[in-house]
Amino acid sequence: MDAYSSQMNKLIEELSRLPGIGNKTAQRLAFHIINMPKDQVQSLADAIVNTRANVRYCKCCQNLSDSELCPICSDPERDKSTIMVVETPRDLAAYEKTQKYKGVYHVLHGAISPMMGIGPADIRLKELMKRLEGDVLEVIIATNSTLEGETTAMYISKLVKPTGIRVTRIASGVPVGGDLEYIDEVTLLRALEGRTEL
Amino acid sequence: MDAYSSQMNKLIEELSRLPGIGNKTAQRLAFHIINMPKDQVQSLADAIVNTRANVRYCKCCQNLSDSELCPICSDPERDKSTIMVVETPRDLAAYEKTQKYKGVYHVLHGAISPMMGIGPADIRLKELMKRLEGDVLEVIIATNSTLEGETTAMYISKLVKPTGIRVTRIASGVPVGGDLEYIDEVTLLRALEGRTEL
Repeated sequence: MDAYSSQMNKLIEELSRLPGIGNKTAQRLAFHIINMPKDQVQSLADAIVNTRANVRYCKCCQNLSDSELCPICSDPERDKSTIMVVETPRDLAAYEKTQKYKGVYHVLHGAISPMMGIGPADIRLKELMKRLEGDVLEVIIATNSTLEGETTAMYISKLVKPTGIRVTRIASGVPVGGDLEYIDEVTLLRALEGRTEL
Repeated sequence: MDAYSSQMNKLIEELSRLPGIGNKTAQRLAFHIINMPKDQVQSLADAIVNTRANVRYCKCCQNLSDSELCPICSDPERDKSTIMVVETPRDLAAYEKTQKYKGVYHVLHGAISPMMGIGPADIRLKELMKRLEGDVLEVIIATNSTLEGETTAMYISKLVKPTGIRVTRIASGVPVGGDLEYIDEVTLLRALEGRTEL
């Protein structure tokens, strides 16, 4: 490493702090950056600083947004009586890509994890409960199929049920195209428990 | 993608222009960045801009450097009569890591590639030839073992030989720890041709 200039070492160090970027990748990126046109480099750095500086969340669903309400919440075509609860904006984006879900979302920005010291007050549950005071018919819980996701799902279900609103959980089972041979036992049991009539 | 804010999309787009960063990785990095402390984000952006703005090369060996001469060229312990010619600063760093080579380097910043339109004038050959006017006893050509690297090696060898300076090429063969079964035929033949007495 000492073979490079000190600024180069600093850049490599900064880049390798990013998730999934090891020292080798950081070196490759750094050498790419010093060979990029200056205006492109400036544009990359500006995007990094500006995005961080101007992070804004939809006041309704808590998704990332440019304005007070995100495009989904302000779309009159979307069914506001169905709320899908997800952990992150990326999970929301994954469901949006299916282009089939016509309801709205609620982004928790995390999941309850006693191990990591994340309690119900640390995720955006208060904001969800406030929305339920409106005309909501169903809450679909689409948190991850992990210990934290399941804990969060159970917690939300217990909170919402007393309001009389329908609470559902997305199905757990064998992924489409998945080969049974390579699926773990817990998933196989879940798929069996969740079997439907043909 | 349209599920994110426009600034987020811009950042993802900027990041995915970097080599080896696809759309998924760019998303992961962008979400990491919006959750990083602001001062760390600023420090990353500064490192990117400053490194690009202040790229400087050693006036002797053309390696990246903070000052006029790089630490290797200004080290009185290094043997200035042996010059190892490499394609990039990363190749130089790879040899430096061995801690065994005591000579100096010359970084070409590329290799001759008629396919890509890169000729002898596009790499730092002129600077190498100028150095040979001094007290140089050997030029070790350590360009890559690729078509371009070999072409460059041949070209340099033809240029240097008339000066009477010794020209050598690093050995090509089976990597240490390499299993013959998985080595390509060209390498196997090279290893056979380059066999030494035991």
